[in-house]
Amino acid sequence: MQAADQLQEKAEAFLSNLPLSRDLGELEEAVRYSLLGGGKRIRPVLCLATGEALGARIDDLLPAACALELVHTFSLVHDDLPALDDDDLRRGQPSCHAKFGEAVAILAGDALLTEAFRLALRYPTPDVAREVAEATAGMIGGQYVDITTESDLDPAGLAALHRLKTGRLLAAPVGCALAVAKTPPRDQGPWRDFAADLGLLFQIVDDILDATGTSEELGKTPGKDAAAGKVTYVSLFGLDEARSIADDVRQRTERRLSSLPADTSVLAELVATIRERRT
Amino acid sequence: MQAADQLQEKAEAFLSNLPLSRDLGELEEAVRYSLLGGGKRIRPVLCLATGEALGARIDDLLPAACALELVHTFSLVHDDLPALDDDDLRRGQPSCHAKFGEAVAILAGDALLTEAFRLALRYPTPDVAREVAEATAGMIGGQYVDITTESDLDPAGLAALHRLKTGRLLAAPVGCALAVAKTPPRDQGPWRDFAADLGLLFQIVDDILDATGTSEELGKTPGKDAAAGKVTYVSLFGLDEARSIADDVRQRTERRLSSLPADTSVLAELVATIRERRT
Repeated sequence: MQAADQLQEKAEAFLSNLPLSRDLGELEEAVRYSLLGGGKRIRPVLCLATGEALGARIDDLLPAACALELVHTFSLVHDDLPALDDDDLRRGQPSCHAKFGEAVAILAGDALLTEAFRLALRYPTPDVAREVAEATAGMIGGQYVDITTESDLDPAGLAALHRLKTGRLLAAPVGCALAVAKTPPRDQGPWRDFAADLGLLFQIVDDILDATGTSEELGKTPGKDAAAGKVTYVSLFGLDEARSIADDVRQRTERRLSSLPADTSVLAELVATIRERRT
Repeated sequence: MQAADQLQEKAEAFLSNLPLSRDLGELEEAVRYSLLGGGKRIRPVLCLATGEALGARIDDLLPAACALELVHTFSLVHDDLPALDDDDLRRGQPSCHAKFGEAVAILAGDALLTEAFRLALRYPTPDVAREVAEATAGMIGGQYVDITTESDLDPAGLAALHRLKTGRLLAAPVGCALAVAKTPPRDQGPWRDFAADLGLLFQIVDDILDATGTSEELGKTPGKDAAAGKVTYVSLFGLDEARSIADDVRQRTERRLSSLPADTSVLAELVATIRERRT
């Protein structure tokens, strides 16, 4: 079993050396700029750690793990566009459209999604690519709810939004690992339950950080949710209660993890990192 | 063998009844609006006609054929955006962003691409989805060249641009049909050569129509290429010479077709339609 930071290095190296379609030509610059901007690689690490716990090999997991990072990056590039969240800052750097212009950023996002599928399609069966496609559809559906919903979401609506917008792409690493490890569907349930709770935990912490972090810490513009009148765990429950919910979800996630029939020590490390992260 | 208009009806019916991911929620409206806007369905018909000539069943071909129409529609929705071609008219109707706003149009395009892969991933092997992914990467690379190139393309540069921007998505129907029909790679060459010439023919005719058609005929804004100072076959060679080149390419395409070891009568009908189309 490799530690989370070792897994992150593997993912980073794989992404750095990822060959893109030659047909993209000079669009590659904007694609690589967005992809290599120093993200935390939570999705690839989660996929690698889950896959290792399931007995799969890191080399076999890397294409699936990194395909999800490409989908995530695609979603950020399009989400930052002026017509959507209109954010000029991402991971402490100019966002893709701020650096390359809107037209190139739209195409760079399209290219990232397409490259994600090229990567997921390296496998001999379509299982990994199907996980990626389903998760991407969910994420896009969540984005749509996010930009069209007025500030009148109730707690159930907020949970539904998060299950799609953030949750699907945080559950997909586990789904992809199950596909690579060829875990039979009848054994997948407890793993997917763990993944769903982890996604929820991630989002609550995200909402807390948006309300409390600084631009320097986050590498993106904080306080945007409140400024946009968006419903978040913090706006709905207040900061203290949101923190308390996050701790409850963390405990439930850890219970789910400890009941899985595998060495989940690295995954436990990841859960702690997600709850305690400051960026 | 079914005639081209029968194949178009099959594709239209399949697209009308296509189930989308439930996660897309109300974004489905913008997706369906763009998809069911009355296109000519050239790519699906080409895939179905090629596949029938190769001995595959229509029902087995329809997901691949229509996946390419989804990619095509995705490319139109994003291409029409204000940051790219800025076109408010598409197929005689308001383009997606003109009707639903820019943010929704960006997400609808993303959803169309994702749904294209969901469809291409219905097959038991990844072959069709790989054809779709490679063609999409090429098309996006062509879009990038198109928006970043100044009006100084030479004929070779123009041909390279078209091979990517239009050609790849017009060759992919043949590639997908070969995949569905399980044609061995050693027998695919002549089919792919035919597809490449057909794509070239399509683009030259497109350039001629942009220079000569009316908005009413085309269902989109004509004369945009000239207005944008874009290099086209017409700007480079003049209208008469462009027509003469189109006829030469048509003849070469028909020669390639007649040398294929199959009943290619429906494909010949398609070649004629593409050369003689007025919209």
